[in-house]
Amino acid sequence: MRNVAIDRVGVRDVSYPIVVKDPKNGTQSTIATVSMSVLLPHDYRGTHMSRFIETLEAFQKKIAPSTLEHLTEHLRLRLDATEADIELVFPYFVRKKAPVSGIESFMRYEVCLQGFYCQETFDMIIGVKAPVQTLCPCSKEISSYGAHNQRASVFLKVRIRELVWFEELIEMIENASSAPLYTLLKREDEKFVTEQAYDNPQFVEDVVRDLAVTLSKDDRVTWYSISVTSAESIHNHDAFAEVTQDKRTKE
Amino acid sequence: MRNVAIDRVGVRDVSYPIVVKDPKNGTQSTIATVSMSVLLPHDYRGTHMSRFIETLEAFQKKIAPSTLEHLTEHLRLRLDATEADIELVFPYFVRKKAPVSGIESFMRYEVCLQGFYCQETFDMIIGVKAPVQTLCPCSKEISSYGAHNQRASVFLKVRIRELVWFEELIEMIENASSAPLYTLLKREDEKFVTEQAYDNPQFVEDVVRDLAVTLSKDDRVTWYSISVTSAESIHNHDAFAEVTQDKRTKE
Amino acid sequence: MRNVAIDRVGVRDVSYPIVVKDPKNGTQSTIATVSMSVLLPHDYRGTHMSRFIETLEAFQKKIAPSTLEHLTEHLRLRLDATEADIELVFPYFVRKKAPVSGIESFMRYEVCLQGFYCQETFDMIIGVKAPVQTLCPCSKEISSYGAHNQRASVFLKVRIRELVWFEELIEMIENASSAPLYTLLKREDEKFVTEQAYDNPQFVEDVVRDLAVTLSKDDRVTWYSISVTSAESIHNHDAFAEVTQDKRTKE
Amino acid sequence: MRNVAIDRVGVRDVSYPIVVKDPKNGTQSTIATVSMSVLLPHDYRGTHMSRFIETLEAFQKKIAPSTLEHLTEHLRLRLDATEADIELVFPYFVRKKAPVSGIESFMRYEVCLQGFYCQETFDMIIGVKAPVQTLCPCSKEISSYGAHNQRASVFLKVRIRELVWFEELIEMIENASSAPLYTLLKREDEKFVTEQAYDNPQFVEDVVRDLAVTLSKDDRVTWYSISVTSAESIHNHDAFAEVTQDKRTKE
Repeated sequence: MRNVAIDRVGVRDVSYPIVVKDPKNGTQSTIATVSMSVLLPHDYRGTHMSRFIETLEAFQKKIAPSTLEHLTEHLRLRLDATEADIELVFPYFVRKKAPVSGIESFMRYEVCLQGFYCQETFDMIIGVKAPVQTLCPCSKEISSYGAHNQRASVFLKVRIRELVWFEELIEMIENASSAPLYTLLKREDEKFVTEQAYDNPQFVEDVVRDLAVTLSKDDRVTWYSISVTSAESIHNHDAFAEVTQDKRTKE
Repeated sequence: MRNVAIDRVGVRDVSYPIVVKDPKNGTQSTIATVSMSVLLPHDYRGTHMSRFIETLEAFQKKIAPSTLEHLTEHLRLRLDATEADIELVFPYFVRKKAPVSGIESFMRYEVCLQGFYCQETFDMIIGVKAPVQTLCPCSKEISSYGAHNQRASVFLKVRIRELVWFEELIEMIENASSAPLYTLLKREDEKFVTEQAYDNPQFVEDVVRDLAVTLSKDDRVTWYSISVTSAESIHNHDAFAEVTQDKRTKE
Repeated sequence: MRNVAIDRVGVRDVSYPIVVKDPKNGTQSTIATVSMSVLLPHDYRGTHMSRFIETLEAFQKKIAPSTLEHLTEHLRLRLDATEADIELVFPYFVRKKAPVSGIESFMRYEVCLQGFYCQETFDMIIGVKAPVQTLCPCSKEISSYGAHNQRASVFLKVRIRELVWFEELIEMIENASSAPLYTLLKREDEKFVTEQAYDNPQFVEDVVRDLAVTLSKDDRVTWYSISVTSAESIHNHDAFAEVTQDKRTKE
Repeated sequence: MRNVAIDRVGVRDVSYPIVVKDPKNGTQSTIATVSMSVLLPHDYRGTHMSRFIETLEAFQKKIAPSTLEHLTEHLRLRLDATEADIELVFPYFVRKKAPVSGIESFMRYEVCLQGFYCQETFDMIIGVKAPVQTLCPCSKEISSYGAHNQRASVFLKVRIRELVWFEELIEMIENASSAPLYTLLKREDEKFVTEQAYDNPQFVEDVVRDLAVTLSKDDRVTWYSISVTSAESIHNHDAFAEVTQDKRTKE
């Protein structure tokens, strides 16, 4: 067995239908891309790949931040392992009202749940990736009119000691951007968001910092990682900014 | 053999280094994603997959619109086929000067060459996919200030009877957009392109039509297909418009 | 307006939750990537992008081959257009029993529905993209033991005059492959599918032809397009074969 | 400025032509996807995005493990930063002889170079992602004939104190797999690699461990990270195994 312990062995890119808790509707049906793995001691040649899927099959209708510990613990026991990880990434839809007309449609966010069972303790990260608009402060300042703006993607991950809803993270992200995105806008809404973005120019650096300030004040959050990537409309490449902060080790 | 002729059998997603003709520098080294296929008569069970790669190997240092017929004909003969196709898609870099400072950098475009040998005649399509900026005319008109804009992708393909350089297609595309993109811009350049885009609002419909007008007047072009997709900065989905025109059948 | 009619203008890459008819469970909740477009006459500058989303919103809970005509017609009328297209691509999950143990899990397929309204007639294509195993007949024949095999993807699209379930297309595809794939297999199942594949070596050419024979006999199908792409385990590129057949024009 | 230092701000997904050192041919022209970033102190609102591209422009013809320190240091100084990172990911082609016929073709690998300048010290990681074949030992053992096999991807990254060529990492990876892949194989070669794979069944766990043993003995390497992902030909998901080891902290 070559005397090498393998940090992680498992399955990846498993596409599975799941049912997720949703504060508005009770539950939401969606489709997760799942990764599951365990530590493999040096004296075992391989793991039992089918047991990962059996665990997923058993839990697929009860996915939520509140059930993740139970699921991760179940995985660890089912695989006879000392350490186990699970990550679920899935689209999460929220009914969103256009800002002026009030017309409703589904807005898609991408959400992740990560559970880690290691050295007899459980740890969990929840995350949201949300598309937003960024409008460039420099372009606005130096130009006689107009300002380049574009779709950007904000990926926020938090370690929490108390429940935080995906909807709360989405709100934090959208508040830090130049303007939120919508699936359905009428003319009066388009005027509103165009002016809203022009009134709120934000570098990727600004989005990251505004989110950092919000999260540093939120006592439910003990650690956060923020990544903002902007598909610059004047360039063929992206601008990005990132901050990671463990609040427990911050002096 | 089930008495079924197979329209196309071959290899796909072959990544290969190639040398392409370049009007400025003589040649340009790049990396193509190649697809090659032939018609398989009903009385053959399979084709000779290795011969596709041998053909590519023989021609990889002489790729150009002007050599494509020879390459496609070689492929057809090597595979003992009556019909043969080849498609090469590759990044093509052009040195580009920023509009005010004149500072230079490489701008990446994606280019395609398609050769078809069928019923003893050769046909060829060349294409360019270029990223541009589109600034929304509606958003500009209805808003007191600002206008949403974003990166868009224009994919132009033409069937030609005379040589057209990739650089010429790129210029047509960028002229039809609100503003071209650059890899390297200084402050004075950023001011220039911000105002240029605001002065040239273009729907995806406008970009398609301006290109159609240009191509309909170009006698070297006998057929064209234009597709414009815009990553709307107020939505999480894209807007698109498309026109295909065969000029020989147009009344 | 430049006197150019635009073939297609619309929205693309809209991610939306939908409810699809399912013969086993009545309905299935899934998430579609949607493209919708209309013909834009030369005397209109642009289309009403928000009306596409409104149409999707109205129909998202009743997606099926049987409702597609109504949805496409609604889209055409809502956009005041003479032609309209819609395409929905979505994961479709089927409960699948392992071949020996009988253990069940969800298997993911990708499905598409395309509706076309043009010149006052409606046309529809349904499709399934299914992953399968192909085992190389040549490798088996020339080798003293073993045979290279791999995951392949079969994309089958059909134009139908009578209802065909996705499950029927999936069955046709899996029957034409060396072996179907499963999400969950126990040891006895793994033995079974390994031997099944070795007993059924299939080139991409064979998969395409077996499917063509099946579809040519199926009177519900008036047109078909079959594409098989195999991620060859001895190469870093793919082998593929394709057949398209319009049965109404076949002599 | 909200008093938040930003860990990293920069540009991402920059596609740029580069010239890389190559032990066989002196140099190799390829195309990199580049990410560059610096630490931004809390008292600066934004960084100078154009300077990243200017640095890349200055160095694009001299990319190699041996020039990476100079490039990273130049980036740090040009941006007036205390910390700077650069990552270049690019295709790297090697002429490869088929095992029996000796016929030659280009084989594509993906390579990465990462330079970190932090607290006045420079650190560097080089990596290779290589496609290989894995043949399942369990499937071989339990089946009367055959064994499922598939394309797998091995991503190996190493921190080095002395020069290691990409070619050496590629050789380590291919030796740990069931069989290497080739772009061009004749019949006699296909027989050879089919039997070679059957003779060398390897779980993802085995590939990881064999590589770990090799790297633990290589004194030029002070740290390594190995990730193997196998596109299982009996499943629609991947199996994976990973080990990361810092040799300096290993007791």
